[in-house]
Amino acid sequence: MKETMSPSSYELILKNISRFIDLNLEEQNLYVSLLKQRIIRKKDFLLKPGEVIKNEYFIVKGCLKVYRIDDKGTERISMFAIKDWWTGDMASFITQQPSNYFIQALEESEVLQISRENYELLFKKIPKFERFYRILYQKSLANYIRRSDQNISLSAEDRYYNFVQKYPSLVHRVSQKDIASYIGVTPEFLSLLRKRISSS
Amino acid sequence: MKETMSPSSYELILKNISRFIDLNLEEQNLYVSLLKQRIIRKKDFLLKPGEVIKNEYFIVKGCLKVYRIDDKGTERISMFAIKDWWTGDMASFITQQPSNYFIQALEESEVLQISRENYELLFKKIPKFERFYRILYQKSLANYIRRSDQNISLSAEDRYYNFVQKYPSLVHRVSQKDIASYIGVTPEFLSLLRKRISSS
Repeated sequence: MKETMSPSSYELILKNISRFIDLNLEEQNLYVSLLKQRIIRKKDFLLKPGEVIKNEYFIVKGCLKVYRIDDKGTERISMFAIKDWWTGDMASFITQQPSNYFIQALEESEVLQISRENYELLFKKIPKFERFYRILYQKSLANYIRRSDQNISLSAEDRYYNFVQKYPSLVHRVSQKDIASYIGVTPEFLSLLRKRISSS
Repeated sequence: MKETMSPSSYELILKNISRFIDLNLEEQNLYVSLLKQRIIRKKDFLLKPGEVIKNEYFIVKGCLKVYRIDDKGTERISMFAIKDWWTGDMASFITQQPSNYFIQALEESEVLQISRENYELLFKKIPKFERFYRILYQKSLANYIRRSDQNISLSAEDRYYNFVQKYPSLVHRVSQKDIASYIGVTPEFLSLLRKRISSS
């Protein structure tokens, strides 16, 4: 049975788009017609290493983690994708080469996805989406660089504070193990850190 | 004395732009009028930590390194900017917050710079630059993610091979110390690595 997209899912993505560009009603309808809704059950994957990513994803509900396994076999979480955020794997999406990443749902989640074909069609049909994506990618790039920076220059404690500030809704929603992986410490170290913070 | 921009400098940047968008003669002239040429002497800086970056830079000639100092006081080079490449600090450029980076010329270099004001003006005057920058940032994002990936998953030897493949012209132009900083090893380790490779 085909899922029907709820009006509130459209509204959320259109509001996200309207941060950077204005769409008239006709453009809104055309845009929405290029999207597909998908429900991902808890623990299911949107992407696994070796697969070519087929879509970009906008999260309507829930929470997913984007991670890879490093050379020591350790899980390294690069982002939590939550409501009103975009996710995917840009390198795989544009080169159509296999990904190194997992994207896995930590909770039952709802996403709106746009395929590679519809993404290219979008720029032909509504060229002002070039502007939307230019600004979106610019911000992603700035965020990405800032996060890499913090990973090499901040203490584990400050990285934890940054996590709390960036994802206030996740502090009690995500496992200690996943938070530890995101900030780059062991779960044991994170537990000590939290105790030290709460007693200070 | 004001430097005059050589026709070959224009030609190089216009050819770079033409990878993603077509400009007519009028648009080319307008675009070029928004750029400023600059010569940077060897060892001089385009940017230092604490400064807000004022421009995006296109390299016409020479070589610059983009780096920061980590919490242990070690220099970490994130990119070498060479002929026909773009560089800057996206986070500082869009947020107008102070940068954490140095951009320093390793050789006398020539760049074409566009200021923040002219960059915004460009999108108003020639909207198709939205497309140019959308694709440029998309590629940067993919490269950036790929490089972070490699840093956590590849051996020092493979990171060295990647450097050689990405920057064939730099292998003998840049100091051992800078190459070591880029691949994330000590100069002593790089020296051992090179000996091992040349004798195998």
